[in-house]
Order: sequence, then structure tokens, then C-alpha cells
Amino acid sequence: MSFSAVDVIVTKRDGGRLADAQIDWVVDAFTRGIVADEQMAALAMAILLRGMDEGEIARWTRAMIDSGEVLVFGDVGRPLVDKHSTGGVGDKITLPLVPLVAACGAAVPQLSGRGLGHTGGTLDKLEAIPGWRATLSTEEIRTQLADVGAVVCAATEGLAPADRKLYALRDVTGTVESIPLIASSIMSKKIAEGTGGLVLDVKVGPGAFMKTPDHARQLAETMVRIGADDGLATIAMLTDMSVPLGRTVGNALEVAESVEVLRGGGPPDVVELTVALAREMLGLAGVDVDPASVLASGAAYGVWERMITAQGGDPSAALPKAAHVEEVVADRSGWFKCDALAVGTAAWRLGAGRARKEHAVQAGAGVVLLADPGESVTAGQPLLELHTDTPDAVAGARVALTGAGLISDDPVPRRSLVLDVFRP
Amino acid sequence: MSFSAVDVIVTKRDGGRLADAQIDWVVDAFTRGIVADEQMAALAMAILLRGMDEGEIARWTRAMIDSGEVLVFGDVGRPLVDKHSTGGVGDKITLPLVPLVAACGAAVPQLSGRGLGHTGGTLDKLEAIPGWRATLSTEEIRTQLADVGAVVCAATEGLAPADRKLYALRDVTGTVESIPLIASSIMSKKIAEGTGGLVLDVKVGPGAFMKTPDHARQLAETMVRIGADDGLATIAMLTDMSVPLGRTVGNALEVAESVEVLRGGGPPDVVELTVALAREMLGLAGVDVDPASVLASGAAYGVWERMITAQGGDPSAALPKAAHVEEVVADRSGWFKCDALAVGTAAWRLGAGRARKEHAVQAGAGVVLLADPGESVTAGQPLLELHTDTPDAVAGARVALTGAGLISDDPVPRRSLVLDVFRP
Repeated sequence: MSFSAVDVIVTKRDGGRLADAQIDWVVDAFTRGIVADEQMAALAMAILLRGMDEGEIARWTRAMIDSGEVLVFGDVGRPLVDKHSTGGVGDKITLPLVPLVAACGAAVPQLSGRGLGHTGGTLDKLEAIPGWRATLSTEEIRTQLADVGAVVCAATEGLAPADRKLYALRDVTGTVESIPLIASSIMSKKIAEGTGGLVLDVKVGPGAFMKTPDHARQLAETMVRIGADDGLATIAMLTDMSVPLGRTVGNALEVAESVEVLRGGGPPDVVELTVALAREMLGLAGVDVDPASVLASGAAYGVWERMITAQGGDPSAALPKAAHVEEVVADRSGWFKCDALAVGTAAWRLGAGRARKEHAVQAGAGVVLLADPGESVTAGQPLLELHTDTPDAVAGARVALTGAGLISDDPVPRRSLVLDVFRP
Repeated sequence: MSFSAVDVIVTKRDGGRLADAQIDWVVDAFTRGIVADEQMAALAMAILLRGMDEGEIARWTRAMIDSGEVLVFGDVGRPLVDKHSTGGVGDKITLPLVPLVAACGAAVPQLSGRGLGHTGGTLDKLEAIPGWRATLSTEEIRTQLADVGAVVCAATEGLAPADRKLYALRDVTGTVESIPLIASSIMSKKIAEGTGGLVLDVKVGPGAFMKTPDHARQLAETMVRIGADDGLATIAMLTDMSVPLGRTVGNALEVAESVEVLRGGGPPDVVELTVALAREMLGLAGVDVDPASVLASGAAYGVWERMITAQGGDPSAALPKAAHVEEVVADRSGWFKCDALAVGTAAWRLGAGRARKEHAVQAGAGVVLLADPGESVTAGQPLLELHTDTPDAVAGARVALTGAGLISDDPVPRRSLVLDVFRP
């Protein structure tokens, strides 16, 4: 059946409901270049301002999945379960989590992405490990899932191409901030990757994409419903992103901290969230094992070594270090606020992140916290270490850290890490 | 100053007001290809759904004018005044009106357009006259204004290029129906053409672009305000477009009917609207002459001959006739509704109009009314003549005329032609 792009746009523009056949057609025609970028941009803006109902969102997600291949791993000997985070500052949780869940007896096929802006990307972090490669064939993924139970690699080109094209368009047309479009973007990729269950870590706070609990809740609920509508068991956890996770922000720095966690140490918040997410993933996978005790046993570290080695990395190699390190000290006494957005922006400017997707990142760049968020600090006390290969970048990083971001004149309430859990 | 297109889009998307500098930048950058089509499409949709206030509309219009040249005719010996119609079925009023106003002592620099869809274009109509050419240089326009006082020609390429580019984009992205964008599009071209006063004929009804009096009033008021804000004396008349104007729809057919009016005859509604518009135009021009008596005197016909001749046309040449003519008869007794959209669509399908702007039109094609709208008719009575060079098109034209469009089972109220007048 054929449709007019203008009719589809006008239907949504005037607050109407898109028919299943309209959604199927417009997503397919856009992927194939029949619906032009300017038409999809107008439709995306209409969707952002008019919304989509549950049925439309489910169909839109399905159409994006159907624009490409769907991975089918068949029997890899254990239940498949995955996790996705909407992105935060210092959010290295995937690194300890994937080996931990595998060590507990499930298999994790995590197809991941790179960072853009102030939040880091999992692939950028793992690429700090000498030799590690992000790109695997589907057959390599399957083999590694069966052998190691843990894979973190780049999404293949064939997965939800409609989403890739649409995301690039939304990025330049002010149409990113639509909950139906964000939710369907995330879920289309995760459903297409062939996982058997999914736990979503929806970050909320100044350092997250969702700044308010209301928006984060809507996103979480929308994604859980999409999963249910498409037959993928999905749970969403709402977690705090007012301050960075752990004590490090930056690629190699976060790998090192993740290894500490896998060896039974590391910052308590990283351990807490890793275990909480693992518990939900194992629940979905039907594996009755306590992840806290597995983490403490060191078994997860063994899986980490095998996972890194399987993708060409050397888990015992020294990690890259930045050429230049300097401290940021408290300019007055108060409480260490450690605003996640300020710290994430500083790390980004130091070279840990990228402003455009064709840019490279510095493996060693980033920020190390020298005090705990919420702690009382005195003027002159060292608060942060700035790491970079390009000392010229320090001034820009310091600008991001001035103002109300670092020190609060009033006590900062201790954060509660897991704020809510949404189940189907 | 430079801006981010996304910031501009997001400002309007979130219901904010665009700053003058944002409007200036985005319109200029779009014209020069720096703001991409997909970005302008998203912005147009945001403007359509969020609106613009009077100040934004005035500035947007000004930015579109400033994207190109502004014609300055200097002293042509008489006051300049123009008219613009938002388009209707059988709306040939420009043809008798321009010579009439010139005959009364003002000068009319009408830069006009071609038809698209079910409404005809003035240039298409005049091109039915053998030899007549639509394209004049600015110098030719100036000379003809001084010599004849009447010019109807194609808008030059340099006039409001931002509007031309934006209109083409809106046409394919479902963003035509925005009153701020429609109003600024019309007014930018009219202000750039260098007229000294402007009377707008805002059509309302099934055959018009504005289907409801509410929308038409909003458009009329918005355009009158834009004129006032930009220093152009502007009046808008709200006129009926429930049935065609006059007895003919189609290019040569409408020229012939216009000549009848210029010779003191013609259908009463065409005469009434021509005189009413002329009266407002002359008022703006400060010319105290009664257009009804000038029309009756035949003086306007003399100007017509000189205007057509000046542009290479032969006013005494026989007009093209369609190769094939057949009648439509009443399928039942009732009242002749003669729905303007139905008749306009039929004429369009017969070849009088075009579906795409690169298509040609048939000079002789169209529809002739054999009864007056509102008249009581009996089954079998001839109602319309269909004229076409392509008899295969008749079936499609007849489809447009079936249903409730032609005959009403209840008496049809006589229309009131001029519904309202808006002054600054």
C-alpha cells in the first residue's frame, strides 16, 4: 500500500492517531529514502508536540525493528538477559555488571554505543584496554555468548537502520526530547539484538538526559510497556544521577575502577547499583543466585578476563594514563555538591568525550573525585583531579566546574541511589 | 552573530518567543543553505503548532523581504496600489480590476503567480491570450506603470527568495496551514514588490484555502497588522467562496468573461466584487473617483487593451477553445448548489489547472455554469459545460461533481459576497 507523506504528517500534526499501516509505511519509506529528511523532521516535531499512544509507540518500535535484521542466537546454553542505561556521568556499571551476571549463570549479549556530549560510552571505555576491539560478527557474538556468557560490542550496521537514520535527524532538528521517540529508539535496538529479558537503568537528575523524576518515570513506564507489547520481559529502575557514579569519570579511569569492583573492592555506590541491576537481570533470566556473594568471590573478575581476552584485549596490560594531571581545590568551605553535569562536562572537555561523533576520545582523560559527594569540605581542600593529554583543555574544564556545581553552602542530602522500579 | 539552528527550533518547540536576531539569522541562513531543509521543516511545524505573536510575525516577514530585492518604482506619476486574493474558483477579478483601477487614476504593479491545485492562477489565465508574456524586467514594469498604469506579470526571481524556498518546503512537509506562515508569505512578496497600498481579498468557504470564517478572519487580521507594522497601508476584505465567481472557471473562459465585464456587461457578482475592491484600492491611493461609473464608461476596457498589448498580447485575437465540450445535467430536481470546490476540482481535472508546478495547463479547458448558483433546477436540466482538449479527463471531472456538490435537496441561501472588511 502507498501513502502520502503529507497525509501522515498532517494526521499527527492535527492530533490524530497514526494507523498501523501509516506507521509501517512511513518508517520503511524513510529508511529507503522515499520519505525525505525534511518530511520526517516535520513528523518528528509533530510527534514530539502531539505525542503517540501506547499502540502507536508499539507499532513504531516494531516498524524500526523490522527496518533491519533481528539477531537470533538460538541456544547458547544459558538464558539471555541484557541491561541498558540511558546514560550518566561515571556510569561504568556495564563493565562490572556484564561479567557478574555471566558469572551467575546467565548470558549477556550487550550491543552498545559510543558516547556523545557529557555522558560517556561503554565502547569508548573498553577501547582504553590495549588490543580490545568493539566490532564482532554475529557468529563471533554467538560463540562468545556460549563460551564466556558475556559480550559487550558495537551494534551491527544491520540492526534497526531506521533508528540510526532517525536519531541522526532528530539530533539536528530539536526533536530528541520526545518520550515516544526516545523509548522506541532504545527499545527497537534492544529488541532487535535478540535478548530474552531486559533491565533498563533510567537515570534521572542534572547529569542525566532526563532532568526530572516525572519525565524519567514516563520514559521508564513507556519502555516497560513497549517491552510487554513486543513480548520482551522488561524492568526499569529509576536511579539517581545528581552526582557521578563512583570516584572516576573518563575511559581508562573508569575501567580501572570497574576492575576494583570486580575484585571485590571499589566505591560502594558502584557496587550497590551493579548488584541491584544484576539481581533484576537474574530474576528475569530465572537464575536463582545471589550476585553480591558471586561478586565478593572474585568469580566475576575471571569472566571479565575471559571477556576482554576473547575480544583481543589484554586484561593485565597497563591502562593509558593522561600526560597531565592537576587538582581542583575547594574555593570555599561548604559541602561537596559535585554536580554530575558539571563534572561530566569537565571530563568531556578534558578529552574523555566527544562533541561530534567523528571525533576521537582520549583514553586517559577524565576526572577523579578526591572526596565523597555530600562530604563537608574546607577551603583549599583538593576535590578533584583533572586528567588530560591536552593541558590547554583545562581552562575550559575549570569553567564548567565554577559556580554552584562543586560546593554547596548548605548541607547536601545523601542521595538515594535506586529511586523506583517499574515492572510489567 | 551566529546561532544554533537547534536552539532556535527548541525555543519555538517549547512555546517560547523567537528573538528578532534569531528570526533574522534563521531566515537568512535557510536562504543561503546553512540551515538545512530538515531543520526548517521542524521549525515550521513548531511554528504551526505553537504560533507566533505579532512582533515575531512582523520580524519574520521583514526577514523574508530582506532575503531578496525590494522594488522601488520611484515616481510613476500616480499613486501605486495593489490587490491580492488568497485564491478561489473562477476568481478572475484581477483581470478587470487592474485596468479599472488604472483607468480611475492609480497605478497597479501586480506581481502575480500561477495556479496550483483547484484554484487558478492569474498568469495562467492571461497566458491564454495569444502573444501575451508574463515575464517583464523591473525597468519594463516601471515603464508600463508610467505609460499604462497597469501591470500584471510574474514575480521576479529576486523577490523574497526565502519565501519561495520556504513555501516549497512547507508544501511537502504538512506545514502550509499556519496563519503566521501564510500571512508572512503573502505579505513579504507584496511588500517587496513596492506597492504603496494593498487590498487583500481573503476568500472563505469550501472553494477557498480558508474553509471557516474564523480562520479567514484570523488570516485577514494578521495580514492587516503585518502591513501596519511594516508601514504598508493594508485593508482586507473577507469574501465568499462557497460557489464560483461568475459563470466561468478556466483560463481562456475567464479571460472572455473578464472582457465582458470590462465592456460593461458580465455576471453581477464579478462586477460587484471588482467595483468593491476597486473602491477600497482607490481609497488607499487617495483617488476620489467612482469605479462603477468608470467601468460602465468603457474606459477600463481601453486600459485593458493597452496593458495586454504592452506585454505582447493581442487583445482582439480569438481565444483558444477546448476541442471537446459536453454537458452535465441535473440528476434530480432541487437547488443548484454548485459547490466551488467541486467545480474547481472538475476544472482542474479537465486541464485548466495543474497538479505539479512543472505541468502545463490547457488554455481552453474549464467549466461554464449554465444556471445561477442557488437557482431551482429540474432533473435533466443542463447545469454545466465541461471543456477540455483531453476527453479522457471528463470521467474524473464528473466524479468530482457527484455527491452533494451540485444539487441540494433544500433551498440554498443566496450568498452575501462581501462578508467583512478589516482596516488597520
